[in-house]
Amino acid sequence: MTRMHVIGSLAPLLAVLLAPGVLSQPAQPIRGFSAAGADQERSAEERFRGIPKPENLREYMRAITSEPHHAGSPGSRKVAEYVLGRFKSFGLDASIEEFEGLMPYPTERVLEMTAPERYVAKLEEPAVPEDPDSNARGQLPPFNAYSADGDVTGELVYVNYGLPSDYDELAKLGVSVKGKIVIARYGESWRGIKPKVAYEHGAIGCIIYSDPREDGYWPGDVYPKGSYRPEQGVQRGSVMDMPIHPGDPLSPGKPADPGTLNVADRAASDVILKIPVQPISYGDALPLLRNLAGPVAPSEWRGALPITYHVGAGPATVHLKLAFDWKVRPLYDVVARIDGSEHPDEWIIQGNHHDAWVRGASDPTSGNVALIETARGFGELLKSGWRPKRTIILASWDGEEWGLLGSTEWAEKHAAELSKNAVAYLNSDSTGKGWLTASGSHSLQALVNEVMRDLMDPKDAERTLFEAKLDHAIEMARTDDARAKLRARNDFPIEALGSGSDYTSFLDYLQIASLNVGFGGEGGGGVYHSAYDSFYWYTHFSDADFAYGAAFSRTMGTLLMRLADADVLPFEFTATARTLNGYVDDIARLAKDTGAPDFDLAPLRKAADHLDRAARAYNAAATPERLARVTGNRLDDLNRTLYTSERAFRYDAGLPRRPWFKHLAYAPGFYTGYGVKTLPAIREGLEQKQWDEARKFVPIVAKAIDALAAQVDHAAQIVGQ
Amino acid sequence: MTRMHVIGSLAPLLAVLLAPGVLSQPAQPIRGFSAAGADQERSAEERFRGIPKPENLREYMRAITSEPHHAGSPGSRKVAEYVLGRFKSFGLDASIEEFEGLMPYPTERVLEMTAPERYVAKLEEPAVPEDPDSNARGQLPPFNAYSADGDVTGELVYVNYGLPSDYDELAKLGVSVKGKIVIARYGESWRGIKPKVAYEHGAIGCIIYSDPREDGYWPGDVYPKGSYRPEQGVQRGSVMDMPIHPGDPLSPGKPADPGTLNVADRAASDVILKIPVQPISYGDALPLLRNLAGPVAPSEWRGALPITYHVGAGPATVHLKLAFDWKVRPLYDVVARIDGSEHPDEWIIQGNHHDAWVRGASDPTSGNVALIETARGFGELLKSGWRPKRTIILASWDGEEWGLLGSTEWAEKHAAELSKNAVAYLNSDSTGKGWLTASGSHSLQALVNEVMRDLMDPKDAERTLFEAKLDHAIEMARTDDARAKLRARNDFPIEALGSGSDYTSFLDYLQIASLNVGFGGEGGGGVYHSAYDSFYWYTHFSDADFAYGAAFSRTMGTLLMRLADADVLPFEFTATARTLNGYVDDIARLAKDTGAPDFDLAPLRKAADHLDRAARAYNAAATPERLARVTGNRLDDLNRTLYTSERAFRYDAGLPRRPWFKHLAYAPGFYTGYGVKTLPAIREGLEQKQWDEARKFVPIVAKAIDALAAQVDHAAQIVGQ
Repeated sequence: MTRMHVIGSLAPLLAVLLAPGVLSQPAQPIRGFSAAGADQERSAEERFRGIPKPENLREYMRAITSEPHHAGSPGSRKVAEYVLGRFKSFGLDASIEEFEGLMPYPTERVLEMTAPERYVAKLEEPAVPEDPDSNARGQLPPFNAYSADGDVTGELVYVNYGLPSDYDELAKLGVSVKGKIVIARYGESWRGIKPKVAYEHGAIGCIIYSDPREDGYWPGDVYPKGSYRPEQGVQRGSVMDMPIHPGDPLSPGKPADPGTLNVADRAASDVILKIPVQPISYGDALPLLRNLAGPVAPSEWRGALPITYHVGAGPATVHLKLAFDWKVRPLYDVVARIDGSEHPDEWIIQGNHHDAWVRGASDPTSGNVALIETARGFGELLKSGWRPKRTIILASWDGEEWGLLGSTEWAEKHAAELSKNAVAYLNSDSTGKGWLTASGSHSLQALVNEVMRDLMDPKDAERTLFEAKLDHAIEMARTDDARAKLRARNDFPIEALGSGSDYTSFLDYLQIASLNVGFGGEGGGGVYHSAYDSFYWYTHFSDADFAYGAAFSRTMGTLLMRLADADVLPFEFTATARTLNGYVDDIARLAKDTGAPDFDLAPLRKAADHLDRAARAYNAAATPERLARVTGNRLDDLNRTLYTSERAFRYDAGLPRRPWFKHLAYAPGFYTGYGVKTLPAIREGLEQKQWDEARKFVPIVAKAIDALAAQVDHAAQIVGQ
Repeated sequence: MTRMHVIGSLAPLLAVLLAPGVLSQPAQPIRGFSAAGADQERSAEERFRGIPKPENLREYMRAITSEPHHAGSPGSRKVAEYVLGRFKSFGLDASIEEFEGLMPYPTERVLEMTAPERYVAKLEEPAVPEDPDSNARGQLPPFNAYSADGDVTGELVYVNYGLPSDYDELAKLGVSVKGKIVIARYGESWRGIKPKVAYEHGAIGCIIYSDPREDGYWPGDVYPKGSYRPEQGVQRGSVMDMPIHPGDPLSPGKPADPGTLNVADRAASDVILKIPVQPISYGDALPLLRNLAGPVAPSEWRGALPITYHVGAGPATVHLKLAFDWKVRPLYDVVARIDGSEHPDEWIIQGNHHDAWVRGASDPTSGNVALIETARGFGELLKSGWRPKRTIILASWDGEEWGLLGSTEWAEKHAAELSKNAVAYLNSDSTGKGWLTASGSHSLQALVNEVMRDLMDPKDAERTLFEAKLDHAIEMARTDDARAKLRARNDFPIEALGSGSDYTSFLDYLQIASLNVGFGGEGGGGVYHSAYDSFYWYTHFSDADFAYGAAFSRTMGTLLMRLADADVLPFEFTATARTLNGYVDDIARLAKDTGAPDFDLAPLRKAADHLDRAARAYNAAATPERLARVTGNRLDDLNRTLYTSERAFRYDAGLPRRPWFKHLAYAPGFYTGYGVKTLPAIREGLEQKQWDEARKFVPIVAKAIDALAAQVDHAAQIVGQ
C-alpha cells in the first residue's frame, strides 16, 4: 500500500487544495499531520530550510577549531561560551549547565624498546607545513584517557585486534600474554575493550596502534597529500570501560554537580583501566613489531607494514611508563530551549558534543556547527512568529570524548523530567560528505525515511536524499539480484545503536526513542582523534564547501520540526516488530550454535508476534480521518502512549553486571564496546554460556515486548474509538 | 561397490593364498593384475621401494647444484653428463640425444626511472653470506627469455596482474597504456601472458615484479631467515607465447636437430615477444610504484609494499633498454631405456627436466634427483633378474625453462613412434614436502589413488599417502559439511593439466595419457627462478632430509612398474566420463552467461552420456575372472584399445589460432598461460564471443567423445566375449 492510498478520502485532499498557494503544486501529506496542518508545516519547513548557509558553518568551524579544546581545558570553556554566544545572538533562551568530571591529564609518557635493540617511541605528531593548525601548542599529547598509572617492562606480544577470539587463536599458537605487554591494532572492537581483555588474560600493559592496512597508506594517500593517517599520526581516545557505564567515573547514576566529587573514590571505580595503555602511530609500531619472533601471525592478523608479522612473545621487550594527574575538571554543557506553544512538557531534543581531542574539525565540530546553524534557523523562524507546538531543546555537550561525560551527567541530573517529558532524542556528531545515515529506535524509521524522501541531495537538486542513498547502494551492489532488491526497496532500515556518542544515556539509561544521524561515506576519514583533524584537513578532504553541513542542518531541523509540530507523533511500529522478530531469529540461531540446554524461545516469539499484530492494527486504525477526530485528552493520551513506547523496554534492575544499562532491546556489547548487542541480556548470556542468565531473561524480555504491544494496542484503540 | 567385491569369486583369492609367503599376510589385489600376478608385482615393488635412499638424493643434488646450469650453458652440459654417468653406473642403457634451440642470452639490461626522480634499478640478486651458492658467478642475470630487444622510454602504468580483465578495469578508471610502459605483478596468469596482453593494448614495454603480498615478506620471513623471497630476489622466466606452441621457436612441429636451425627465421616466429620485458625485485619496484599518481588502485590490486598503490600513468617515467644475443644453443636430453620383456613396443615414460634458471635445487633438481634414484632402483632390480613387461623410458630433459624445449623437440622427433607406442607419460618437476598431488588424464585417476592407498607417508609410517592427504584436507576444511564430505571420499579427483612443464607435448601435441606428480604444499616456496633456489635453501626450508624425495622416487617407480607390468593396463573411464560431464556443465553455464546465440550442447551431452555408459559397461565386464581369460591377440587388442584411448581426443587440424595444440579436451588458456582450459575450442570461442567457432567445435568435440566411448565399448566387448 503506498502512502497515497492511506489518504483514503477526498476530504483532506480538498483541504490541501483549498490552502493558499497550493493549487499549482499539490502538497504531499506528512505523517502525523492533518492535511491543513501538513500544508502549514511544509510552508514553515521551507522557510526554515532556506536559512542554513554553508558560509556560516565555515565561519563557526574556523572559530571553534582555532585552538585545541579538549574537555576540562580553557579551550573547551571558550568553545562553550562561543556556542552560548551564538545561541543568544539568535535570540534563543540559552545557558551553560556546569558539571564536573574526573579527567586525568597525562604527566609522563615513556615507551621504549629495551631489547633486542633500543628504540624510543616518539609519541608525538609532528606539524605539517601546509597545515598551520597542526602544531602541538596547547594540545594534549597522544594518550588514552583512563589508562592506569604504571611503570612496567615486559616482552611484547602482538594480539591482532585484541578481541576475545584473538586470545583463543593465541592459545592455539601456544602463546600466553601473562606478564607480557600486548600490542593490539585499532579496529573491529572499541578501543577500551582491548586493554580490558588484555588485562583479563594477565597482560601488564597495552599498546594500541593504527595499522596502515585500515588507517594509513593502504586505503589512500596520507595527510597532507591525501586524507589518510600519516606515519606519526596517533589515534587518541578514551579506554574507560563504558559498557559498564559512561559518564564521570566517580558518580555513576548521579549528576556530578560542581563540588560534589571526591577523587579518592577513583579506587572503587569499575570503569578505570587496571593497566597502563598508550596509543601509538604506525611509525612507532614498526620497530616494535619488526622485532617480534615466535609464530608467524595468522594471515587475517597481518596488516600493511612492510614486515612479516610475528606474534612473539619477544624478543622485543618494552618499557611503558605512564602517569596522570587524576584531577577533577569542569564540564560546560550549552543548552538552548524553545518552549512549545501547545505541549511545553513534551520535549524534542537534539545534542552534539563540542569537546574535541585536539581541534576536532570533523569530530565533533562538523556536527556542532550544523547544530548552531539549526539554532539560527529556529531563531529566524521565531522572529517571524513561528513557535513549535512542543518544546525543542538544543544541547552542545562537553566531555563526550572522555566517556560521554557532559550528556550523561545532564541526563542523570534531569532523569525524572526526561523520563516524563522526553519525546525523542536526536544525536549528531561528526558529519561529512556522502549519504544520510540514521540509526536508532525503529519506531522512528518511518519518519526518517519520509524526511529522506522530502529533502533534496545537496549536490544534485534532481534527486532526493533517499534516491541519492539508493543510487549509491545500487552502484555498490555486486549482483543483479541485490540491485533488484534495492530497487524494490520502500524504506531504508535503520540500524540498532550500540554506543559511541551522546545518545547512550537517553536511549540506554532512560529509554527515550533516539536517533543518531549524519552524512558520510564518501571520501575517507584518516585523521580521527589526531592533531590533523583540523580546519585545513576538513576543508580539503571532507565537506570542503560545507554543502553537506548545511544540508545536515536542514535535515535535522526538519526532523525536529516534524516531531515538534505533529498533531499525532509520527511513531510507527511495524519496523520495530519486524526488527525484533529478526533479533529473535538471531537468538534462536545463537542458542542452536552454542547448544544452550533447555532454552525455550516461545514466549519471545509470542510477544514479538503480538507486537506485530498490534503494529498492523494501529496502522490500519490510524487513517487521517480517524486521526483528525482524536482531540483533547484523547490526543494527549495517544501522543503520550506513542512517545513513551520506548520506555516499555526499561528494566529497572539493569543488565547483568552493568545495572546502569536498562534497555532490554539494545546495549553496547560487553566485549565489543561500541558494537550493539540486541536483546543483550539473553544474547550475551548465550555467548558467554551463562545459561541460567539467558533463560532468566527470556520471560523478562517477552514481558517488555508484550507491554510495548499492549501500549500499541492502546494507541490503536484510542484512534479506533 | 568396494574393491573386495570386485574379486567376485574365490579362485583368485585361493591363488593368492597359495602363493609363497602370503598366508600370514593376505595380499591386496592390484588393478590389472591377476591375483598371482599381483602377488609377484607386490614382491617386486617392495624390493624396489627398499632401494631409494635419502642420502643419495642429497649427494646428487649437491653435485648438480654446485654451479649454475641454465640450458645452453656448459653447466647444463655437465649436468646432462652427470645424469648420463649415473644412469650408466646403474647398468642402464642410456644416451644423450642432442637438439638445438634459439636461446638468446641478455647482453644489455638497463632499467632506470628518469622522472620525477632518478633511480637506476639494480637488476641483480646480492649474495647471502649464509649461502655459499648465492653468488652471481656463472649465472644468467635476471631476465625474461624471449623478450624483444628494445630501447623505450615512457610513463609507467600499474596494471595489477596484467590480465585482460585488469585492462577493462583500467579503462573504467580512464587510464590507457598506449605508448606507455606497464608494470605488472607476478601471479594469477602465467608470466608470458602479461607482456602479450600489454602489447595488445598498445604498451611499448613491460616490467614484471614480485609483490611481497604473494612473494615476499607477507607470507613469511624472507631468505635466509625464512624461505621467502628477499627484497632483491627476482623471478626469472620465459615469456615465450607458449599457448601458441612450446619448444624451439624456429621449428614448431619439427625436431630441432643440430645444424638445422636458421636464426633468420626468428622474425617469422609468433611466440617471441614484440616488446621488451624485464623482471624485477620488489626492492626495485618500490621506487617506481611510489612515484605513480593518477587513480588509487582498486583495493584488490594493492599489494604489500608500504605505499598507497596508484595506477598512473606517470609521473614515474622509465627507460627500459634490453638487448639479447639471439644465438642457437645446444640441448642435451638424457634418455635411459629398459626394454620390455613381453611388450617392448609399449612404452611407459617418465621425464623430469634438468636445466635450471640458476642452480635450481628445487626447480627442477628435487624432481630430477628422485628420477635418478628411481633409475638406480630399476638398475638394482634388473641385476636381480626382474624385467618389466613393457619398455620403461626415463628422460632428463634440457631447456624446459625456456619453453619446454628439450621434451618438445624429443616428442616432435619421435612423434610417429610415440603415437604408436606410448602408453603413458609421467612427468615430474620440482617436488618438496607435504602431500602427493597428481594432475592429468582422468583415465589414470584410479591408478593414482590405488598407489596412494598402497604407499605409506614418509613422515608417518602409520598412515598411507592417501590418508595423509585426506587428514590434511580435513584439517584445512572450514565447515563440518566439508569435513563430512571429505571423510566420505573414496578417490582424490585429479585436476586437468594446462601447461607449465614437460607433459605438454605428450598430452597436448601427441594425446598420450599423462600425469604430473609431486609432493608439496607444506612449507612455502619463495625463491622460485632465483639465485636463492640453492642447496642451502632446499636443505633448510624444503625437504631438508630428502625423506619426501625418496618417497617420491618410490611413488613414481611404483606407478611405472604397475603400468609396465600389468596384464591389463589399469585405465579406468568413469572418472573421465564424470569429469567430461562436469566440463559440459561448465560450458552450458558459460553459454548462458555470455548469451551465446543458437548454441546447442545436446550433441556433447549425448556423447558424454555415451561415454558414461561405456565406462560403466567396461567396469562391469572387467571382472578378474574375465580379465584372466583375455590372452594373446585379444589381450594385445584390449591393451592397445585402452592406452590409445587418449588419442580419441586428437584433432589433427589443431585448435583455432594454434594448430600445434591438438587435444580437444585440454589446453593451456590462450589468455591464462599455464591455467587449463577444458574443452578449449568451445570454451575460448564462447569467452571471446566467437560464436561461429564455438558452435563449429560442438560436433567435433562430441565426435571425439563418441569415438572414445566406442573405444571403451570395444574394450568391454573384448573382455565380455
